[in-house]
Amino acid sequence: MTTHYFDHAATSPMRQAAIDAFVEHAGTLNPGGQYGSGRHAGSVLSDARETVARLLGTDPVEVVFTASGTEADNLAIQGLYAASELNRVVSTPIEHSAVRDTVNALDGAEVALLPVTGTGHVSELSALDEPAALATCMWANNETGAIQPVAEIVARAAAAGTPTHIDAVQVVGKLPVDFHALGATTLAASAHKFGGPRGVGLLLARRSPAPTAILHGGGQERGIRPGTVNVAGAASLAAALEESVREMETEQSRIRELRDRLRERILGQVDDVTVNTTEPALPSHVHLSFPGAEGDSMIMLLDSLGIEASTGSACSSGVNRASHVLLAMGVDEHDARGSLRLTLGRTTTAEDVDYLADRITEVVSRARAAGMAA
Amino acid sequence: MTTHYFDHAATSPMRQAAIDAFVEHAGTLNPGGQYGSGRHAGSVLSDARETVARLLGTDPVEVVFTASGTEADNLAIQGLYAASELNRVVSTPIEHSAVRDTVNALDGAEVALLPVTGTGHVSELSALDEPAALATCMWANNETGAIQPVAEIVARAAAAGTPTHIDAVQVVGKLPVDFHALGATTLAASAHKFGGPRGVGLLLARRSPAPTAILHGGGQERGIRPGTVNVAGAASLAAALEESVREMETEQSRIRELRDRLRERILGQVDDVTVNTTEPALPSHVHLSFPGAEGDSMIMLLDSLGIEASTGSACSSGVNRASHVLLAMGVDEHDARGSLRLTLGRTTTAEDVDYLADRITEVVSRARAAGMAA
Ligand SMILES: Cc1ncc(COP(=O)(O)O)c(C=O)c1O
Ligand SMILES: Cc1ncc(COP(=O)(O)O)c(C=O)c1O
Repeated sequence: MTTHYFDHAATSPMRQAAIDAFVEHAGTLNPGGQYGSGRHAGSVLSDARETVARLLGTDPVEVVFTASGTEADNLAIQGLYAASELNRVVSTPIEHSAVRDTVNALDGAEVALLPVTGTGHVSELSALDEPAALATCMWANNETGAIQPVAEIVARAAAAGTPTHIDAVQVVGKLPVDFHALGATTLAASAHKFGGPRGVGLLLARRSPAPTAILHGGGQERGIRPGTVNVAGAASLAAALEESVREMETEQSRIRELRDRLRERILGQVDDVTVNTTEPALPSHVHLSFPGAEGDSMIMLLDSLGIEASTGSACSSGVNRASHVLLAMGVDEHDARGSLRLTLGRTTTAEDVDYLADRITEVVSRARAAGMAA
Repeated sequence: MTTHYFDHAATSPMRQAAIDAFVEHAGTLNPGGQYGSGRHAGSVLSDARETVARLLGTDPVEVVFTASGTEADNLAIQGLYAASELNRVVSTPIEHSAVRDTVNALDGAEVALLPVTGTGHVSELSALDEPAALATCMWANNETGAIQPVAEIVARAAAAGTPTHIDAVQVVGKLPVDFHALGATTLAASAHKFGGPRGVGLLLARRSPAPTAILHGGGQERGIRPGTVNVAGAASLAAALEESVREMETEQSRIRELRDRLRERILGQVDDVTVNTTEPALPSHVHLSFPGAEGDSMIMLLDSLGIEASTGSACSSGVNRASHVLLAMGVDEHDARGSLRLTLGRTTTAEDVDYLADRITEVVSRARAAGMAA
């Protein structure tokens, strides 16, 4: 069965350029080696670092390769907290678990959450006026796609002397990112969200204040991220980022058009549906609630038709809970449980959109019927 | 210039089977997805986990994929320490920095070091009789190759109720490993040491006591190692391990013969040289001291001849310090600075050995002359 993939926000297929870069550099050895093949590995790594720096508006020395967005978020948050004398942390109620769970695990932290509006946007920033060890906010939400006012957040935190971490995992490769212009202290990204390999992430990190290392070892990556460096992975990430940025304008407007068409076709035929994605938002996301239909039932019915999507809140355990993001937006629990996140990407075609749109009414009615029976 | 690579203990070229497995599974998506391609990714990941479990004598559920040996060591040591009420930790003076620096960074830990003999073997185990949060010991030393009495260490620690972490980064893929028979609580490995990709490691971890997670996020890998799983990397590691284990006997005796020939040829021609590798040791290692020659000078001279080796103690910064391993063995600082670690591997040929043996006298004399001039 051909599949129609609508879960690009979870992960996206690797770009051929990224596979090619990985294979080309699979043979690179240890950049720490004081000999020819070590220098070669070092220069492949420097090239990757320079490409990333150029594309994201930062200096090569501020690019720290990690193994994931999760690790980058942990390094920034645990590391900036450890580097500070303060124990106050500002965050939001709609963060990804890589940020939320990390903030909640900080020893002795007093956490203030910036409130969000009914559209899932952070609005009221006054909690940033009191100095904190760090403020952390996602650039765009992984469930709804809502784009947050990160420039204002960074500026307001900076006015109080607070460093800011930005979780840009959903944004890098999709929207222009200029780290220095933004003024953030750290910024996290994950290669597999923009066509790079799974298992490679990055943290942009100012020289000062720099996060304290959370892993200990051989001193690689400015001493804040030790371990023999995955040079092929870094080169593969850089190749994917290069292509994403090159195609960004045309590709994101193509995706936006498809997304709008999908949303309009759904709204035009299904009764009682709420759109949880409100501008400003990523062009790739449309998050919907169909009250009375369990998210999991819809996912299973769609899967049986070869359509791959998620509720948006499913964690790796696959347990369906009402999303903390929707609850923070004031959506009631019943509606929140009837959620479907459709996220488009590079491989999405008009045919995928129409295939889904032709089947959604049937899927929602069957899921609603199942919900009534239960 | 053809190069002759003698730094396999630092990192080893990827096996073709590992590259093929990576490419074959580069397209796998998120094993957390509740749909066809998610289930496919999940089954590729399960296969990799089962292969590793079968080859290393453990259950699939005890296999935790990480991004490196360094991360596996950190997770085990920080995680077992956090999971314990005790603050005593037993280690050795010859650990890799991934263990040494992690132990030294444990908050409030009281560290006891098991002494080593002049041959670099841990001998006196009585520090294990007093209960501790954990004991940690490497299976084989990365500099000298000395194999440690890990079975005795695990048993002696267990008698005191102490969990043991074994850093088996130099051993997995080289010597038979049976995790359950060994009885250790955790065991770390790194794919790139046995022909797998850089950026993938693993921790074998008993269900209980299990290390507390050091990264927070989506609950993957039994909740102790979150982040979207690098399925292609796990499959690639498994392919490399499968081939390493299949070839182990013939390959390791081939390597041992080449290593012995190299050592004998060097001893037969160079004056005033000490062999720091004493049995029991890995077949791949020969660590030598040439008093009066700076390690770095020898590395540079060898490099100019296309021979790639290391001093063994070089960290990523490339600064030449006397090795903590040699100092712990009682080698004096002057001799320790004249060290050369030659490590052989899968790609090493008799021709490589002879090429090096034909040039070593000249290299050592030039390095000694430079040392006298300085
Ligand atoms: C906003 C956000 N932050 C962090 C992450 C974690 O990224 P990874 O799973 O690559 O570690 C994700 C993706 O899962 C995400 O969407
Ligand atoms: C004994 C030992 N432990 C840990 C490590 C760390 O492994 P990695 O660099 O893959 O993180 C190494 C290799 O560098 C090692 O030789």
